[in-house]
Amino acid sequence: MKKNNITDQKPSPLKIIPLGGLEQIGMNITAFEYEDSIIVVDCGLAFPEDDMFGIDLVIPDTSYLEENIAKVKGFVITHGHEDHIGALPYVLQKINVPVFATRLTMGIIENKLKERGMMETTQRKVVKFGSSANLGCFRVEFIKTNHSIVDAAALAIYSPVGIVIHTGDFKVDYTPVYGDAIDLQRFAELGRKGVIALLCDSTNAERPGFTPSERTVGKTIDQLFQEHSDTRIIIATFASNVDRVQQIIDTANKYGRKVVVEGRSMVNIIATASELGCLNVPENTLIKVDQLKDYPGEQTVIITTGSQGESMAALSRMAESSHRKISIGEGDTVIFSSSPIPGNEKAVTNVINKLLLKGADVVFQDVHVSGHPCQEDIKLLYTLIQPKYAIPVHGEYRHLKAQAKLVESLGYTSQNTFLLQSGNVLEITPDSAEVTGDVPVGIILVDGIGVGDVGNIVLRDRQHLAEDGIVIVAFALESGTARLAGEPEIASRGFVYIKEAEGMMKGAGTVVQDALYKCEERGWTDRNHIRSVVKDTLSDFFWKKTQRRPMVLPMILEI
Amino acid sequence: MKKNNITDQKPSPLKIIPLGGLEQIGMNITAFEYEDSIIVVDCGLAFPEDDMFGIDLVIPDTSYLEENIAKVKGFVITHGHEDHIGALPYVLQKINVPVFATRLTMGIIENKLKERGMMETTQRKVVKFGSSANLGCFRVEFIKTNHSIVDAAALAIYSPVGIVIHTGDFKVDYTPVYGDAIDLQRFAELGRKGVIALLCDSTNAERPGFTPSERTVGKTIDQLFQEHSDTRIIIATFASNVDRVQQIIDTANKYGRKVVVEGRSMVNIIATASELGCLNVPENTLIKVDQLKDYPGEQTVIITTGSQGESMAALSRMAESSHRKISIGEGDTVIFSSSPIPGNEKAVTNVINKLLLKGADVVFQDVHVSGHPCQEDIKLLYTLIQPKYAIPVHGEYRHLKAQAKLVESLGYTSQNTFLLQSGNVLEITPDSAEVTGDVPVGIILVDGIGVGDVGNIVLRDRQHLAEDGIVIVAFALESGTARLAGEPEIASRGFVYIKEAEGMMKGAGTVVQDALYKCEERGWTDRNHIRSVVKDTLSDFFWKKTQRRPMVLPMILEI
Repeated sequence: MKKNNITDQKPSPLKIIPLGGLEQIGMNITAFEYEDSIIVVDCGLAFPEDDMFGIDLVIPDTSYLEENIAKVKGFVITHGHEDHIGALPYVLQKINVPVFATRLTMGIIENKLKERGMMETTQRKVVKFGSSANLGCFRVEFIKTNHSIVDAAALAIYSPVGIVIHTGDFKVDYTPVYGDAIDLQRFAELGRKGVIALLCDSTNAERPGFTPSERTVGKTIDQLFQEHSDTRIIIATFASNVDRVQQIIDTANKYGRKVVVEGRSMVNIIATASELGCLNVPENTLIKVDQLKDYPGEQTVIITTGSQGESMAALSRMAESSHRKISIGEGDTVIFSSSPIPGNEKAVTNVINKLLLKGADVVFQDVHVSGHPCQEDIKLLYTLIQPKYAIPVHGEYRHLKAQAKLVESLGYTSQNTFLLQSGNVLEITPDSAEVTGDVPVGIILVDGIGVGDVGNIVLRDRQHLAEDGIVIVAFALESGTARLAGEPEIASRGFVYIKEAEGMMKGAGTVVQDALYKCEERGWTDRNHIRSVVKDTLSDFFWKKTQRRPMVLPMILEI
Repeated sequence: MKKNNITDQKPSPLKIIPLGGLEQIGMNITAFEYEDSIIVVDCGLAFPEDDMFGIDLVIPDTSYLEENIAKVKGFVITHGHEDHIGALPYVLQKINVPVFATRLTMGIIENKLKERGMMETTQRKVVKFGSSANLGCFRVEFIKTNHSIVDAAALAIYSPVGIVIHTGDFKVDYTPVYGDAIDLQRFAELGRKGVIALLCDSTNAERPGFTPSERTVGKTIDQLFQEHSDTRIIIATFASNVDRVQQIIDTANKYGRKVVVEGRSMVNIIATASELGCLNVPENTLIKVDQLKDYPGEQTVIITTGSQGESMAALSRMAESSHRKISIGEGDTVIFSSSPIPGNEKAVTNVINKLLLKGADVVFQDVHVSGHPCQEDIKLLYTLIQPKYAIPVHGEYRHLKAQAKLVESLGYTSQNTFLLQSGNVLEITPDSAEVTGDVPVGIILVDGIGVGDVGNIVLRDRQHLAEDGIVIVAFALESGTARLAGEPEIASRGFVYIKEAEGMMKGAGTVVQDALYKCEERGWTDRNHIRSVVKDTLSDFFWKKTQRRPMVLPMILEI
């Protein structure tokens, strides 16, 4: 679609290698490699799938970077959401290179580093919009965008092969609440120069039209405050949406309401954003939760976490009557300034039901706008930048595919559109682009302080335990024989209610003894063999009785 | 809002007692009681919540009916969806009374009874639209409605206190695919006579406007067949939506395509509906799956289950490449003629992603209409019937609440609108209506062939096991002492990957031995006490090492 300002000598290819973030939402991390330089854009986590029982979070396998650690020049971060920064504290422990980000993004990263005592050991460089950072043979320019968090940046990556633009997550907001609108002029300017590839946010690529400005939500909130002037107002939203919080605080101030902030992540982000000047809280607006009793409900607002129905968040605890300081009832209006992230619909609806049952008025529709570009916004960006190659990113495969389909109308074909999968190595030269191979990628599960110690076997066991429970049979054998020393002990957990299944459990005891007599008779003494005989016999027994397959675990003590 | 044709003598109250179906989707069952007569409207199941690990389905606790079994005259069923009939085979075993339903509804019930050999023992009475059944002091008239399943009925329940109308699930469809439109005239007629209470479907009460006719989907399907005339077409929809299946078959026929039916429930319902004349399959349209290879893709259509992303359904197996006979790829168009039921969004989106990755074209928007009334439809019904009391039913609390709010505009207030909860006893006399008490209600969990043997304790254990796994420590003690006979054995499942945690498990062994020495030293021999010392010591040990809390199960063998 455009010429490229590339010199004549034939350079090495630029490699673009997504190490995560495709095929699923979250865990965004992409390597850009040219000869002996690698830079990494974002380093996010993913939240566990429903069947990843007990897992707290999921981080990318970065062994490709570890193997090429000498080349890695730094992490370049687009914005401060967990799916873009959440894995940093883990990955930095293996790959300790400088981190580049804008101010608020860095502030949020620093909160994480502080918690883990990693401030001293981590090199951090705050970059201003319009400025660049040099990392090996790359220069990276931070370009102002808009998003559902302040200080989001797109990156112009200058490589010997040409300019690549990575949008990060973004939206086009002509009237943002804080700071400037997206720097469309700069995108146009770079487009004129020649951009070889555009990695563009696909999250909303299925949605027609334009994404409305964040300010439209402010108007809705103002209206809701007018309509509910005689009740207390509780608003749940995303902690990181500083602009949303700003608009709520401004509206509260306008109508003479005091503001309480509830939920740890909300308190943290408001502190960080205020410190950095991204949030402006008028004096005498904030009060402590204990002061709520000093004001009539209609003079207060509570801004809270829990808009996704997260079970431990402040709003959910209020709905469950387990919040220590705030109880909800008639005379409360609860506003969800959010929409449920896919997968959270049921949790959100449960909270809504509980709040309604308590007598609260609940508003949960149309008090939110997206932070991602819709179809016309995406076309605008492509038209300004006119990249040679289109690389849809950020979203599930269906969203990437939707962007690919969308830009067909702009003349992009399967020849110059790349739907990458994690691990793909896309090699770009001035004249060509193709996927030439794969590097190893994967996920690492974090559970408690364990990173990677829960793998497929443990997960499969958890799934089995969750489904049917476990029966343990312990018995002592005289050393070297299959002769029982004493009675076997049987216990179960998560299988049946023991008190009502005593008969069956007694039967199971007999079955085990019979199986062991058989082993003894036949002269079988091998412990593994005995274990498997007991296991199979008991499994069959329980299947016949219950049509369930509990895990059966024989334990042999040697006497 | 209307007079009631009630005699002067003061009769006993009519009691309306929902035994399930409020507070959650599914498990619809409502008792109507007058003196010594009880009739039960519907007898549905619910699908397990996400945290009900291993549970297959959930049925209502009917102990109130069991205690009053002499009064129970029969089950009156509105339509053949699982949430209205699914618990029948279980409940009939305890309360064996006649079942009344329309033709297709009874056909579907009979399929269930046959599977369980209950045909002989169950009295079944098919009722025609416009006809009535007498049950004790009640007469129940079946009134034609429309819904996403054929032969759905509303019920006019004639009681000594007055007429109550129960809509069941319904929609207003002026141009249904099979059979007549909803009998609005009859609702008007009864309204004129005087209806004391209306129990009305709330599922869509949050949605403005009217629900479109099922025929609009037929038009969309026709259009899609035209647009995709050069590919094979796979359409997933709800098995029970006979009208939808009819329209797909008709369209296939129009464009000269052969039809394959995939998925057990789809095959069953098509057989039943065809037998009863509710579905008209033109000759030479259906082919067997093995015959697919005899036709080019563009001359075939596959109608399949799996529109909700259910992991074992036919479409999911195709997407996973685990379907034995059908594989999906380029040249396939997959149409979801459905929208995800809340809670299934992620599962559906996973299937969509997999189908797209295989190269199929996937259509998943706007090929479906709801089977429930939107706000204007609800207002229409209220305006025709003008009941004295409004009782929103069918839906979560938020939906009931939305209907209550909606009918405020028709003049209903908190005085004559009842938002019941399961177990509430609403007593209605000609002059009054109030909730006077509660009967016991609850849920019974079905797991395998076990009905009710999995309760809260077992579920809590499954949740704990799923989250953190289990560690079992078995040791033999010399009888009456705390002296170890041999080494303790430690095993874990779902906790950590043993091979990489050998050190920790060895440490755990030492910790157990130390704890037992301490018991011995102090002369503690009580088994429960020893068990709890070992358990607490090990729990602390693992928490310090991993910040996880596996279930710890000590097992003592006596030697």
